[in-house]
Amino acid sequence: MLYFTSDYTVGAHPEVMERLIQTNLEHTVGYGADHYCEEARQLIRKACNAPQALVQFLVGGTQTNATVIDALLRRHEGVMAATTAHINVHESGAIEHSGHKVLVLPSHDGKVSADEVDRYVSDFYRDDTFEHMVAPGLLYITQATEYGTIYSLAELEALSAVCHKHGIPLFLDGARLGYALASDAADFTMADIARLCDVFYIGGTKVGALFGEAVVAADPARLPHFFPLVKQHGALLAKGRLLGLQFGTLFTDNLYTRIASHANILAQRIRQAFQQQGYKVAIDSPTNQQFFILPNDVMDRLSEHASFELWGPRGEHETTVRFVTSWATTPDDVDALCNLLSNL
Amino acid sequence: MLYFTSDYTVGAHPEVMERLIQTNLEHTVGYGADHYCEEARQLIRKACNAPQALVQFLVGGTQTNATVIDALLRRHEGVMAATTAHINVHESGAIEHSGHKVLVLPSHDGKVSADEVDRYVSDFYRDDTFEHMVAPGLLYITQATEYGTIYSLAELEALSAVCHKHGIPLFLDGARLGYALASDAADFTMADIARLCDVFYIGGTKVGALFGEAVVAADPARLPHFFPLVKQHGALLAKGRLLGLQFGTLFTDNLYTRIASHANILAQRIRQAFQQQGYKVAIDSPTNQQFFILPNDVMDRLSEHASFELWGPRGEHETTVRFVTSWATTPDDVDALCNLLSNL
Amino acid sequence: MLYFTSDYTVGAHPEVMERLIQTNLEHTVGYGADHYCEEARQLIRKACNAPQALVQFLVGGTQTNATVIDALLRRHEGVMAATTAHINVHESGAIEHSGHKVLVLPSHDGKVSADEVDRYVSDFYRDDTFEHMVAPGLLYITQATEYGTIYSLAELEALSAVCHKHGIPLFLDGARLGYALASDAADFTMADIARLCDVFYIGGTKVGALFGEAVVAADPARLPHFFPLVKQHGALLAKGRLLGLQFGTLFTDNLYTRIASHANILAQRIRQAFQQQGYKVAIDSPTNQQFFILPNDVMDRLSEHASFELWGPRGEHETTVRFVTSWATTPDDVDALCNLLSNL
Amino acid sequence: MLYFTSDYTVGAHPEVMERLIQTNLEHTVGYGADHYCEEARQLIRKACNAPQALVQFLVGGTQTNATVIDALLRRHEGVMAATTAHINVHESGAIEHSGHKVLVLPSHDGKVSADEVDRYVSDFYRDDTFEHMVAPGLLYITQATEYGTIYSLAELEALSAVCHKHGIPLFLDGARLGYALASDAADFTMADIARLCDVFYIGGTKVGALFGEAVVAADPARLPHFFPLVKQHGALLAKGRLLGLQFGTLFTDNLYTRIASHANILAQRIRQAFQQQGYKVAIDSPTNQQFFILPNDVMDRLSEHASFELWGPRGEHETTVRFVTSWATTPDDVDALCNLLSNL
Repeated sequence: MLYFTSDYTVGAHPEVMERLIQTNLEHTVGYGADHYCEEARQLIRKACNAPQALVQFLVGGTQTNATVIDALLRRHEGVMAATTAHINVHESGAIEHSGHKVLVLPSHDGKVSADEVDRYVSDFYRDDTFEHMVAPGLLYITQATEYGTIYSLAELEALSAVCHKHGIPLFLDGARLGYALASDAADFTMADIARLCDVFYIGGTKVGALFGEAVVAADPARLPHFFPLVKQHGALLAKGRLLGLQFGTLFTDNLYTRIASHANILAQRIRQAFQQQGYKVAIDSPTNQQFFILPNDVMDRLSEHASFELWGPRGEHETTVRFVTSWATTPDDVDALCNLLSNL
Repeated sequence: MLYFTSDYTVGAHPEVMERLIQTNLEHTVGYGADHYCEEARQLIRKACNAPQALVQFLVGGTQTNATVIDALLRRHEGVMAATTAHINVHESGAIEHSGHKVLVLPSHDGKVSADEVDRYVSDFYRDDTFEHMVAPGLLYITQATEYGTIYSLAELEALSAVCHKHGIPLFLDGARLGYALASDAADFTMADIARLCDVFYIGGTKVGALFGEAVVAADPARLPHFFPLVKQHGALLAKGRLLGLQFGTLFTDNLYTRIASHANILAQRIRQAFQQQGYKVAIDSPTNQQFFILPNDVMDRLSEHASFELWGPRGEHETTVRFVTSWATTPDDVDALCNLLSNL
Repeated sequence: MLYFTSDYTVGAHPEVMERLIQTNLEHTVGYGADHYCEEARQLIRKACNAPQALVQFLVGGTQTNATVIDALLRRHEGVMAATTAHINVHESGAIEHSGHKVLVLPSHDGKVSADEVDRYVSDFYRDDTFEHMVAPGLLYITQATEYGTIYSLAELEALSAVCHKHGIPLFLDGARLGYALASDAADFTMADIARLCDVFYIGGTKVGALFGEAVVAADPARLPHFFPLVKQHGALLAKGRLLGLQFGTLFTDNLYTRIASHANILAQRIRQAFQQQGYKVAIDSPTNQQFFILPNDVMDRLSEHASFELWGPRGEHETTVRFVTSWATTPDDVDALCNLLSNL
Repeated sequence: MLYFTSDYTVGAHPEVMERLIQTNLEHTVGYGADHYCEEARQLIRKACNAPQALVQFLVGGTQTNATVIDALLRRHEGVMAATTAHINVHESGAIEHSGHKVLVLPSHDGKVSADEVDRYVSDFYRDDTFEHMVAPGLLYITQATEYGTIYSLAELEALSAVCHKHGIPLFLDGARLGYALASDAADFTMADIARLCDVFYIGGTKVGALFGEAVVAADPARLPHFFPLVKQHGALLAKGRLLGLQFGTLFTDNLYTRIASHANILAQRIRQAFQQQGYKVAIDSPTNQQFFILPNDVMDRLSEHASFELWGPRGEHETTVRFVTSWATTPDDVDALCNLLSNL
């Protein structure tokens, strides 16, 4: 079986695993106060060109979103996000559990538009009854998005500008940030992200770690008292060094972008193979997630040898499917998939 | 330096680590639906003599407490716990974050008394204004407690009986369950715990795992819709198999109790050494945490060579300290400590 | 100035006021345990043909929605409602404050369709990832709606049927229930509402009371432990008899429907007057709220002598406005408005 | 029957009632934006010597406590209060419902001590693990307390000083503020309260109104975005003018203190009568609540003619009871009680 279901079907990248093994018997203090965490923080600050940045490690994406959003919003505020945003769809109401409404904006292949954000906020304060409504207090975006698309530097700058014009912070969910940064289409750096977003996180789980997300705020004043909030949200790992060790490794010798680049290149090869066979590309994604519209019989035959995800319900005649690559996808896997496709 | 600060200063037990390494490149589905999780669930069900049990893996203790308590309480109810309980003191308000009050009971070296629980609940419903008060809806206990003490089988049976007499579930926080089970003083089994507690969890983080807690409800009807709640609380690990692999290993060849037994035996040797030198034992603990009252000068000299925790503030003349052992503590470490003590 | 802005610009209906004055010096117990509340409960049970019904009085609409929804939903569930629903738009996030997501359905002039509810729930459980999503656990509707429209008996029966098919309770916000019941278009009774909805409330604030909403559950088992929840939500009035006295009066000699009928009749006269002058009716409403699309110059001249509400932002050339009647609107007020209209 | 059960067994003071009747048919805007509310705000600002004060009217005490505390606390913080505080005992967990822990301090007849507050906060930050604990973020006190006692000016100044030394706001629940201000023992004014407390509220429900509490913050910056929070907590009255009218009346011609003074004087007469008959005074209260320890047979005979409250459970031989006066208590009522007592 060939595996293209998601970017978290295997363990950790071997270099990450190696580091955990080497240090397994060392004694350190807990909760992220150890020197491995501190080293990882320094590496991340450097990559972000943000020497004063607050860097806090959490375990998973949903808890990170819930904790950061809870930290950034005031009680009467909600978080703006695309209708398709992970926080609006796939977090079992974690944001609402902390008392906040998700205020939905149109999704353009997973992205929101700066103009629409501007209009939403402006219209809100123009409404006579706005004090009876949930105020937009934060903008949440994903990079790369749930649809594999990415915001360009210009788009990020426009979003950042419109947020700051309205005094609203910008939070970027970077569960898939590596794949965005390593994309051929990327015209931005990690430092640009750190400069334009008030808070963002660097996803480890989907990019080579066993688990782990690194929250970054270039200006630590954006996240006062963040540590007890992380604890309150049940997101503080006792053996915190495991996060420091993993991120330290990912940010050594560019492993983080090497992993993502490898996956992106293979994803593009898959895309070309589907296109060559005449199948429709559903979304124009420059990252490690690829979406195709397949006739149902093709999909069924393919699924005997390859695992992938249905993207929405099975259609009557054709169905949208998702193929995902990761550090663990090999060129051989992709060759085998191409062969499969040409012999269906 | 000799390390006795806590039971989570190192990585995982080598057998656990080995298993993670062996399986690192395998593809599995996520979120705990993989076969490793299923195998671990079966091993735990067997150890609990509870073939139908719901077994759900979470990452850490605070999130487990918050999620289970949120699942078991109705809106108008609070959770009874000892004043010294972890949920009342050291979880940054995670229980209240989910909307619930902690109703405090007297702590007897970390334990609550069945009689006092009975009186609390009886008095509550005798009060004319009880509908304006937070109803006791759950009893939370720790085993071993934060003070290293354990409930005997008779005490657990009494607590279970009083809870069920009042129609209130009993939840046991087993972050340190291994050390309780492996204690010389233990007259109960894992199956007793599963039978007497409506819900409990088996702590992995403090007993040989990198992280992980296994929630068990012998009757799954006690935790309906638990999975989305785990997700909502940000407690669902994407690469869920990591939890299955660790617990599968811990429940193979009795590794879980072997680890705890090893630590307990060394802890008793430490206790004897302190007693032989004439130092006071602060709490009578049969598990891997030992508490001593040391003259400040003794404590200061000891701390140059051994790390341990102050248990409360430094006193004027003497101070209570905590020494903790784990699988990673060696007989040599303990010998070295004994030498230190006799040569202070 | 003629007042048509809303149904709560004055005090209470004189009969209600009279009752408060008469009883002002009597001593009663608090929190709704007095005999006036009990009498009002009996009158409401009779009107609902629900002799066992739980009837609980609260003060205002938002708190009633928040409390009832919190009582009916389990933690992992959200409430389905039209995008235009009061709980989704104008309650400052009160539902989310209690931890629940509002799951939006299309609004058809304020109403939801049974077919769309059915499809929403069916599709939800067909989604492979539904356990990562917020489960639909309740349907919220308003009668009359925020747009003055009403559900017919057949529509209510269809909604009730689809809810119960899926095991989901139906909650009807009756802040404007009087106007729906008294409408010429109404083919249902209060007893039908009580039979078809698991929980609903009878709005007092907008129908002649100073304040007050009466929650009704024909089967009290639908709202276990509701009293402490009301207290927890800050919705319990100390001098509870004020609610009993008001509802007792409203349900004596049909005052509740007399008030609503009076307002509806005047509203229809207003509608005819606008139509006769050739202005467009924006929404086909059989109740006390009427919506017109006026040329901006007409609207501006009218607003010099009559107060009414803009329904949404001012348009470039024409604007939608709302006129509302109540028990306090007099035939003379309406005559004066008609004169104004014909002489603009 | 003579009524001494509580201060909310009747309607409103006749002057308040009169004002509601007079204005019943006037049209005003809703939600507190009317001129009656504005006039009442000005009167309150004047009484507080706080010309810029934010004054917001809410309906009841529990909702006011929950809303203000939610507004003043940051997520990771809890509210310090006496163990006997209303928020800790009799609000069905309303504070926890908003996500906050009540941090208990010793109660001295309902009061907290500035020294103990100081020690609590100092000890908290001295604890190495304080970031895992709920930070004290607010001090809540009641004036008069649940036990009828009052803080002197010196005590209020000490509490204010210790709070501000630690950067913690001080919130005073004035549900019974009138009785404190009108007490012979009072050496402070409303302006002192406004100056020393960051936020406080003036209770209407227990001092002559049908309902209503007026939140005051001398510096409005202490309660930013308070209006939507009030709405979110379900505490915004649609016909807001009812609150303005009531408070406007209470703050005209000193009605508020006249009412309280009347009740206090009668309460002192009751106290003397009990003392003359040789019964023990349980708490030394200078306000309208009086507490006595009565032999059970005396209590039983008394209860045939007078209603009062048991303060705690019935004792074996004697029981503590509470007698409460209000504006509606007459000298004749007290005479009758005195007669009863001398003829038991």
